[in-house]
Amino acid sequence: MASLGDIGVSALINILSAFAFLLAFAVLRIQPISDRVYFTKWYIAGKRSSPRNTGGVMGKFVNLNFRTYLTFLNWMPQALRMSEAEIINHAGLDSAAFLRIYILGLKIFGPIAIVALLVLIPVNVSGGMLFFLRRDLVVSNIDKLSISNVRPKSYKFLVHIAMEYLCTFWTCYMLYREYDRVATMRLNFLASQGRRPEQFTVLVRNVPQESGRSVSDSVESFFRRNHPDHYLCHQAVYDAKKFAKLVKKRNQLQNWLDYNQLKFEKQPSKRPTKKKGFLGLWGEKVDSINYYKEQIKDLDTKLMMERERIMKDPKSVTRAAFVSFNSRWGADVCAQTQQSKNPTLWLTNWAPEPRDVYWKNLSIPFVSLTIRRLVISVAMFALVFFYMIPIAFVQSLANLEGLERVAPFLRPLIGWKFVKSFLQGFLPGLALKIFLFALPIILMIMSKLEGHVALSVLERRTASKYYYFMLVNVFLGSIATGTAFQQLHAFLHQSATQIPRNIGISIPMKATFFITYIMVDGWAGIASEILRLKPLVIFHLKNMFLVKTERDLEKAMDPKSVDFPETLPSLQLYFLLGTVYMVVTPILLPFILVFFAFAYFVYRHQIINVYNQKYESAAAFWPHVHGRIIANLLISQLLLMGLLSTKKAANSTPLLIVLPILTLTFHKYCKNRFEPAFRKYPLEEAMTKDTQDRESGTDVTLKTYLANAYLHPIFRSLEEAELAEVRVDKNEAHIANPSPVELKSSSPHCAYLHENEPSEGVQVEQSQKVYHYKFESRSNVYMYDIESQHNV
Amino acid sequence: MASLGDIGVSALINILSAFAFLLAFAVLRIQPISDRVYFTKWYIAGKRSSPRNTGGVMGKFVNLNFRTYLTFLNWMPQALRMSEAEIINHAGLDSAAFLRIYILGLKIFGPIAIVALLVLIPVNVSGGMLFFLRRDLVVSNIDKLSISNVRPKSYKFLVHIAMEYLCTFWTCYMLYREYDRVATMRLNFLASQGRRPEQFTVLVRNVPQESGRSVSDSVESFFRRNHPDHYLCHQAVYDAKKFAKLVKKRNQLQNWLDYNQLKFEKQPSKRPTKKKGFLGLWGEKVDSINYYKEQIKDLDTKLMMERERIMKDPKSVTRAAFVSFNSRWGADVCAQTQQSKNPTLWLTNWAPEPRDVYWKNLSIPFVSLTIRRLVISVAMFALVFFYMIPIAFVQSLANLEGLERVAPFLRPLIGWKFVKSFLQGFLPGLALKIFLFALPIILMIMSKLEGHVALSVLERRTASKYYYFMLVNVFLGSIATGTAFQQLHAFLHQSATQIPRNIGISIPMKATFFITYIMVDGWAGIASEILRLKPLVIFHLKNMFLVKTERDLEKAMDPKSVDFPETLPSLQLYFLLGTVYMVVTPILLPFILVFFAFAYFVYRHQIINVYNQKYESAAAFWPHVHGRIIANLLISQLLLMGLLSTKKAANSTPLLIVLPILTLTFHKYCKNRFEPAFRKYPLEEAMTKDTQDRESGTDVTLKTYLANAYLHPIFRSLEEAELAEVRVDKNEAHIANPSPVELKSSSPHCAYLHENEPSEGVQVEQSQKVYHYKFESRSNVYMYDIESQHNV
Repeated sequence: MASLGDIGVSALINILSAFAFLLAFAVLRIQPISDRVYFTKWYIAGKRSSPRNTGGVMGKFVNLNFRTYLTFLNWMPQALRMSEAEIINHAGLDSAAFLRIYILGLKIFGPIAIVALLVLIPVNVSGGMLFFLRRDLVVSNIDKLSISNVRPKSYKFLVHIAMEYLCTFWTCYMLYREYDRVATMRLNFLASQGRRPEQFTVLVRNVPQESGRSVSDSVESFFRRNHPDHYLCHQAVYDAKKFAKLVKKRNQLQNWLDYNQLKFEKQPSKRPTKKKGFLGLWGEKVDSINYYKEQIKDLDTKLMMERERIMKDPKSVTRAAFVSFNSRWGADVCAQTQQSKNPTLWLTNWAPEPRDVYWKNLSIPFVSLTIRRLVISVAMFALVFFYMIPIAFVQSLANLEGLERVAPFLRPLIGWKFVKSFLQGFLPGLALKIFLFALPIILMIMSKLEGHVALSVLERRTASKYYYFMLVNVFLGSIATGTAFQQLHAFLHQSATQIPRNIGISIPMKATFFITYIMVDGWAGIASEILRLKPLVIFHLKNMFLVKTERDLEKAMDPKSVDFPETLPSLQLYFLLGTVYMVVTPILLPFILVFFAFAYFVYRHQIINVYNQKYESAAAFWPHVHGRIIANLLISQLLLMGLLSTKKAANSTPLLIVLPILTLTFHKYCKNRFEPAFRKYPLEEAMTKDTQDRESGTDVTLKTYLANAYLHPIFRSLEEAELAEVRVDKNEAHIANPSPVELKSSSPHCAYLHENEPSEGVQVEQSQKVYHYKFESRSNVYMYDIESQHNV
Repeated sequence: MASLGDIGVSALINILSAFAFLLAFAVLRIQPISDRVYFTKWYIAGKRSSPRNTGGVMGKFVNLNFRTYLTFLNWMPQALRMSEAEIINHAGLDSAAFLRIYILGLKIFGPIAIVALLVLIPVNVSGGMLFFLRRDLVVSNIDKLSISNVRPKSYKFLVHIAMEYLCTFWTCYMLYREYDRVATMRLNFLASQGRRPEQFTVLVRNVPQESGRSVSDSVESFFRRNHPDHYLCHQAVYDAKKFAKLVKKRNQLQNWLDYNQLKFEKQPSKRPTKKKGFLGLWGEKVDSINYYKEQIKDLDTKLMMERERIMKDPKSVTRAAFVSFNSRWGADVCAQTQQSKNPTLWLTNWAPEPRDVYWKNLSIPFVSLTIRRLVISVAMFALVFFYMIPIAFVQSLANLEGLERVAPFLRPLIGWKFVKSFLQGFLPGLALKIFLFALPIILMIMSKLEGHVALSVLERRTASKYYYFMLVNVFLGSIATGTAFQQLHAFLHQSATQIPRNIGISIPMKATFFITYIMVDGWAGIASEILRLKPLVIFHLKNMFLVKTERDLEKAMDPKSVDFPETLPSLQLYFLLGTVYMVVTPILLPFILVFFAFAYFVYRHQIINVYNQKYESAAAFWPHVHGRIIANLLISQLLLMGLLSTKKAANSTPLLIVLPILTLTFHKYCKNRFEPAFRKYPLEEAMTKDTQDRESGTDVTLKTYLANAYLHPIFRSLEEAELAEVRVDKNEAHIANPSPVELKSSSPHCAYLHENEPSEGVQVEQSQKVYHYKFESRSNVYMYDIESQHNV
């Protein structure tokens, strides 16, 4: 076990590495060449132009103004200058709410840390049980400050119980205030939003298949019958898996073509060639540029045929549709109510905003969904309880004795005091971190298989899976011995009261481990976050090899967005550590506070300058954040009960049993009080916005506006090409994707290309011409768009 | 432990007592004097007139037609003659669905019993482990037919596992079919219903208090704003606790007056007197008739003043209201959606039908509800785990050794073989039954405190509480040793895998006990149900002392309704016994089958001839029935796992662990598939019925129809009086309580008496006159109505 000195070394290393990251960031961010990496958001917003246009040849790449190097930490006050309202405006409510989590951490643990340190440290130290033990038996100096130092059966435990009550009440109070605040922010945000397609649109799934009737017809007649005063139009959803595959392939070929053309431009003397066979290793040698051009042409023909097939084949229309209404009230009513006798048919939900839709999952039948969820639950269980085995192996290496046994040649090295401290303080945390790297990808795939229809939901589900994983493997896995599966086995064969005891008793012993974890994962991790090493390297590589035009440059920036599936669960882990240790080893709290404060600065900076959110869910993740912190409180109470019962603190259990009941009641109340604001849209609000619209007269063009808002991405390309042609006439920049075709069409629904109405055949032909033209001109760009929207 | 002989004796006793009950019933039901007790429903429906009007003096009381005595069991075929559709028509869907539970029991356990007896009995008997043990060690002959007889580690357990799979699948299949059937029946029933106030009305609770505005005004303006095309009118809810108390008191006085007047009529020579003091034991002697008449007159004045106060005081209008819409679609939308930003305000739900409303709980604020539920949950937990102590004491007496120890003077009596068998076979079941008597009353009070707003919900909640109680105290309490609290303590200190083992191992041993329980509680209990001993006695007592007019006679009938809070949980207990023992001791199944079949006959007879349902919830209890049977399946699977692991059946746990997962998935699927039919009303259906109405033109008088449908019971009296006056003109018998006053009123909402509109002052005065007239004329009758509607 690590001593206080080891912690010091670890703190030093981590502070130094954090400092190094910050220094590197400070230097790199003022270099013109990296400007696009560190101010991506501003470029996307069109509010910043490259500083490379000013200054000399050298000045294009390196910052020669040495005065700016002196103020290298000035990004911190800069990051704070923007107000919350401005952040919401600039980056959306998701980002603003995300920052509030850190503030919530500071608000909860700040006062608790002060009180706990002032009250509990004297109480614990004065107990002095551990002073009587031999030095090598005492696990660390930090334990002298923790509850371990109090003698069994001492009345001092009443102070700890009182503190647990105090902390729980304070946390709940803060949670309540914050939930209230975020719910209000969400409603205000939604109320202040302009007209958006998702306000009028409902996603209908499991449309029943009626014989002799197309899905579009069924949808139309059903909603015309049951929402006669409100139904406006609907948009069919096409099954375009094969098309998307072809697009992906074409995109790869285009990349190769671009690469070869660039190569040729640089060395005009030598035309690039390639071998036709497997991986270009053997086969006939051909001219690369011609080869790829031909291949792309072939693929274009195939794409066109596939597209035509989709149009004509009624089977390619899936059993889902986006139904639009003539008022928010009408859409709200449809989204919240049950439509059909059979509640597994005509399932209605608010449509996600267009860029948030995960198209692939729209048409999964109800029974399949039930089975998918079952299978994924079982798989998730297996993942949580068997993933630990390799981690446990590596951690046993990180243990010094284990390391010596496996690699005896390292023994002299381990002999050095500094190396020993380094290994003990640093390695266990690092080993965990490395193994956690591949996990989010697996979890995201599992969430996709579960069948959720929006990216935001997918990310939230992944985050919640990740949290369970962290809870079992990182938290319990670090505390209890053996793999998670061994623990599971042990738990099943232990009594319900024994489990919290067994974990509770080892809680104080693991404080030092978690302190190093906070420093490695929290402090140094956050510092590396601001440096953006990976995007930086990739940007410069792309810049060197691929970028030809201004548009390519913009593509190369890749702003990314806040990585909710990973950051939310790790944040929740810090909350868990804080709540569990606030009474047991309060000395851990300052480390968490430093993390929250530092991370707040960094993410504020990143959100303002770098990240560009893929979607806007209006803080829909907050109920999860709230729920997890409540769960953390319950875990902490349970473990304290276990710990105190091993300490033979008389009657501690009856005193503490009230807390979880109160906490659960509080949670239930909050759930009823605030959660509907995140799940449903009150009719009152919908009516208010409708009235505003009616008064200002903006609801006249609604049908045009909604016509193609939820057009499947495979048609999006076409729209864009046409759009460019007519944008001059329309001049309505704030309206996304209005369809000029719909204006001409007299069809009662807005599915622009529709397989069952021969009168529209002309349009289809016409559109295919435009489509062809498109492929010639800017195919590369839109293909990328399609693929990113398809996020395969 | 009871031997096979003991069971035989018990069976004999119970069959004899059941037979005695049936015989008594057969004789009593053909006596004209009891006709009203056994054919109550027909009298209420107005389809039967008293047979006492025919025949001589003697024939008025006793049936002299001796031929009818010979066919004394002919009620059974008579009970079967009515088809299900006729029963729905005659007694409502609740009753019809209730009967289906018995049929479901027969359908599930019938085939299982045949297969299990044919397959498992040979397998169990051939094991022969128990044959080698000494006779007194063997617990009973029945155990030789059970799984106890199979040797540990035998491969025969595979047969039991396969049977468990088979039974689970069969049960799930039957459950699915039945859920589907009942859901369809419910939707058809709702679709076939005529126009009813609850189809257009939504109960709004937690109306926010706005300063300077009455609740009625708030309601009006809120719904006019947010449901402009659908809002019709609303009905305020008055706080009338004090008024109800006065009415109750007046009712008692009226009873005394009636009693004394009757006494005087019988003995005109002597005017009855009473003493004024406490309980009539001392004080001044006065003339009873005059005394009560004066008292009633005083109370009438008080009532009138109280009524006036309620009208005038805005504080007596509670924060709840019944809001009516102009179409089912509009009401449906309002019931299913969230109205306000703050989801704890403007809570909307379908209104229960008028006779189902539990007025007292309408105005409980949201925070109070949360706290009430918490407190009741804790109280419920305490009740379940501490109620057992007295039962355990009595059961230890029922144990022969215990009895001998406590009452040594009984020893010679116990020596008799027959008495011993009687005590062992009969007493344990009887002891349980007696203690369960007071329970439903306590549970109903708890449910009322929880704040539910409909009688049907109250009964369902009571039933579910009763089920938990039975599960822990009757089922687990009979299997495990010690009180429930001791068991709880033991469970907390046992491992998760040990608990099902400990219970599982004693399951087969308790088969004989449960067989006697089924015979006592089931067979004999049901037979006593048909005799209606208590209502019979009460009816004849009332007949002798109180009945003066035909109307009094009708009141004295007291048809009661199916006692859901008690019958549903006991039914579910039989399902539990069946599912647990179907694989362990299949010999128990025939006893359950007899119970189901017999009870089906009896309840069919009672529902057709006696019971008159207080309300109609359209089988809203079915999801509970379904859920409980699923829970029973899970319990049975868990216990079998425990039992088999004590039998060292290798790898039985992995083979069985799949079953609960599949069962839970099935449950989840059914919940999604069918439960919405019981909770929400699909818009499609609402629209269809609206269209029908519009076509037939019956929606013209809607406002009049709805005006006073949800009038608070304190005003009902007035309406009835007026109704009698105008009924001649209106001649609309199927429309309940249309208000003539509303016809005259031009007020925009339908709250007929409204405190803030001075223009209606005239009406108030006028109505009070009518009211006063009413009190004079038929006060006794309507007072009784009010009280029964208030169900204090």
